[in-house]
Amino acid sequence: MTESTNITWHDSEVTKEERQKLNGHKSAVLWFTGLSGSGKSTLSVEVEKQLHHKGLRTYRLDGDNIRHGLNKNLGFSPEDRTENIRRIGEVSRLMVDAGVLTLSAFISPYKEDRDQVRELLPDGEFLEVYVECSLEECENRDPKGLYQKARAGEIKGFTGIDAPYEAPEKPELTVNTTTASIEESAGQIIDYLAGNGYIQAAAEK
Amino acid sequence: MTESTNITWHDSEVTKEERQKLNGHKSAVLWFTGLSGSGKSTLSVEVEKQLHHKGLRTYRLDGDNIRHGLNKNLGFSPEDRTENIRRIGEVSRLMVDAGVLTLSAFISPYKEDRDQVRELLPDGEFLEVYVECSLEECENRDPKGLYQKARAGEIKGFTGIDAPYEAPEKPELTVNTTTASIEESAGQIIDYLAGNGYIQAAAEK
Repeated sequence: MTESTNITWHDSEVTKEERQKLNGHKSAVLWFTGLSGSGKSTLSVEVEKQLHHKGLRTYRLDGDNIRHGLNKNLGFSPEDRTENIRRIGEVSRLMVDAGVLTLSAFISPYKEDRDQVRELLPDGEFLEVYVECSLEECENRDPKGLYQKARAGEIKGFTGIDAPYEAPEKPELTVNTTTASIEESAGQIIDYLAGNGYIQAAAEK
Repeated sequence: MTESTNITWHDSEVTKEERQKLNGHKSAVLWFTGLSGSGKSTLSVEVEKQLHHKGLRTYRLDGDNIRHGLNKNLGFSPEDRTENIRRIGEVSRLMVDAGVLTLSAFISPYKEDRDQVRELLPDGEFLEVYVECSLEECENRDPKGLYQKARAGEIKGFTGIDAPYEAPEKPELTVNTTTASIEESAGQIIDYLAGNGYIQAAAEK
C-alpha cells in the first residue's frame, strides 16, 4: 500500500546524528558578532581554515555569499535587517542539521535578532562569539573606508556611528582583537570546541 | 598593516574544491520535480540513504525543513511560490558550495523557476530529476488526500488540478515511478552520479 510504504521510507531518513557520526565531530554554528572592522570575517576565515585542515566539515556564511544571493532582495531598513539575520539563522540551522561546523560572520548588532537565531537551534548548537574591539580601534583600522564615509554622512545608519551595537551579555566566547592576534583568538575558539566535545582534542586529518 | 593582512587572510579561504577533495566526491544538487504523489520525496529519501551509506556527504531539502523555517513567511501566491523556489535554489547553491550532495524535493511546477535555479549553479552542478508519474496514478495514490480536497474545491491552485505542471524539457534524468519501483529509480540516479564522475563507481564507506 502506497501510503504505509511512504511512512516507512520516511522513518529511515538520514539524521543529523548519523551525519555527525560520519563526520567524526559535532555540528554547531559559531556566530561571530561585532563592529565593522572588529575582525569577525578575518577570524572566521582563519578558524575555518584550521578546522578544515583537521579534516572537519565546515562552511562559512558571510556578506559575500548571502547578500548577493539569498538576501539580495533585502535592503537595510530595520525590518530588512531583522529578516536578513532571520534567514541567515535558518540557513545556519540547515547547515548544522547537515552536520557542518558553520561559521556565520555578520555584525548582527541587535541582541533580539541574535537571540531569535539562538532559539532556532537546539541547545548547545548556537555558539555566540563576541568579537570585541573598541570603536576607536575599529575606526582606526577602517579597512573599507566605511567609518570615514559614515562620519561624513555618506552612509546612514552605520553601526557604532549613528546606529547602536548591542554587545552580547552571555556569549559562549569573547575574543578581543585589540589585545590578541587573530592566531591567538582562533586558537581560543578551537580550544573551546575541543574542550567542550564538539571536536576531538587531537583530531588530525 | 591591517588592511593588507585582511586581504591575505581572505586569499586563503577554504574553497569548494578543497571541501570536495576532503569529502572524496563532487557536490551538486539533485533537483527532484514532479506532481504531488509522484514519489519525489520518497525517492529522495531513498537516494540520500544510499549515498550516506556509501560514506558521502548529503543533505535533503523538502517542505518539512523549509516551509516551517526559512520560508515560513511565504504563502502560496504566484509571487510567493517563485520566491519559495528562489530561496530553496539559493540554499541549494550554498549547500553545494559546502561540498554537499544536496537533494531538493519540491513540486516546482514552473519551468522558469527551475531554470532560474539552474542559472544560480555552476555548470554541471544542477541535475534536474523529472519524477514522471501520470496524474491518474498520482490521484489514485493520493497519500495525503490532497487531490480529493482539490477536486472538492477545498484546496485552490493545486498543481495538476487547477494549476499547471510544466514538465522539464531537457532534464538530466527522468525516472518513471509508474513503471519502475523506488529502488529501481534510486539505482538509476546512483548510476548516473557514478557514470558521470560525481561519485566513485565503487565508493563504499
